[in-house]
Amino acid sequence: MREFPLDKVFQLLEPGPVVLVSTSENGRDNVMTMSWHMMMDFVPPRLACVISEGDHSFQALAGTRECVLAIPPASLAATVVDIGNCSGAQVDKFKAFGLTRKPAAAVAAPLINECFANLECRVADDTLVEKYDLFVLEVVRAWADEAWPELASTSAARALPKTLHHNGDGTFRVDGEMLDMKARMRKFPEFL
Amino acid sequence: MREFPLDKVFQLLEPGPVVLVSTSENGRDNVMTMSWHMMMDFVPPRLACVISEGDHSFQALAGTRECVLAIPPASLAATVVDIGNCSGAQVDKFKAFGLTRKPAAAVAAPLINECFANLECRVADDTLVEKYDLFVLEVVRAWADEAWPELASTSAARALPKTLHHNGDGTFRVDGEMLDMKARMRKFPEFL
Repeated sequence: MREFPLDKVFQLLEPGPVVLVSTSENGRDNVMTMSWHMMMDFVPPRLACVISEGDHSFQALAGTRECVLAIPPASLAATVVDIGNCSGAQVDKFKAFGLTRKPAAAVAAPLINECFANLECRVADDTLVEKYDLFVLEVVRAWADEAWPELASTSAARALPKTLHHNGDGTFRVDGEMLDMKARMRKFPEFL
Repeated sequence: MREFPLDKVFQLLEPGPVVLVSTSENGRDNVMTMSWHMMMDFVPPRLACVISEGDHSFQALAGTRECVLAIPPASLAATVVDIGNCSGAQVDKFKAFGLTRKPAAAVAAPLINECFANLECRVADDTLVEKYDLFVLEVVRAWADEAWPELASTSAARALPKTLHHNGDGTFRVDGEMLDMKARMRKFPEFL
């Protein structure tokens, strides 16, 4: 894994990919599948996510206030689905699904080598955890697979693997056509 | 527009599409482009979104506590980008971009006829607005283009138009292949 700048993190999460969340509590690692997240700020990268109190990961995240968000390529779909359909209370998911852990730099939760990007996060605000299970996270370190040097460069990260978007019912949309509208991103009154 | 059940709303937002946000304050309608949103609960459908205090829509949303989230098809990309690059303080965007308004049922903000789904929303919680510009919205009525009866039926909404996912830099990923993993959505210990 190669570190990449924090100011590029929002470009990975803004499109709304399914992510994996790894946690580590008392030496026990766990991982879950999550789609309910959004960016909140660019730098430092802040995001919100909802992790239900019913999820085994909830206690680890609330207790340690640390996690890693790992972005799986679409090719990992079957594993992503299976991870989402069992609980860390019953299964050692890293072992069961053959996921390769790498140590993170700032948090105890592991990076996941099969994911092309890994974001080390700390809980920045828990105001709405009790009411809505809504955590505000801050990304403190960001890592990408060596195969994707785009993420460590200043160029846009357009060559990245396709990701998954969950329709909420067991069907997913895989990233398709890339639409480059950069030339149109000009401020009024240049157009009209 | 045809009304569809609130328990299907999360299936439209969970994949992370770019949406339009319409507001109406003192008889003046406005619309903005937004990607920073996430589902928070299924029924009633609750979601979070970040609308910056610098956006013209912020005051209308904070003041009226109402908006409509409209989901544009990918074919509307150019308009979606242009809407995001000018301000309602300077432009009557509905007029400038030829958007067709339809009256909503429960809120003053208009539905947008060019979007295939429209969600009438009320602000449900503003605890984190001052600190993060984070609004918690509840969807109170949901409407779909007559061309998409899937949304009013109990079947999954798989035939819907492709949507846009913003990479944050003026490039977008359009929905591609649909991956049906329903048969794999079974609970442990059925697998392993």
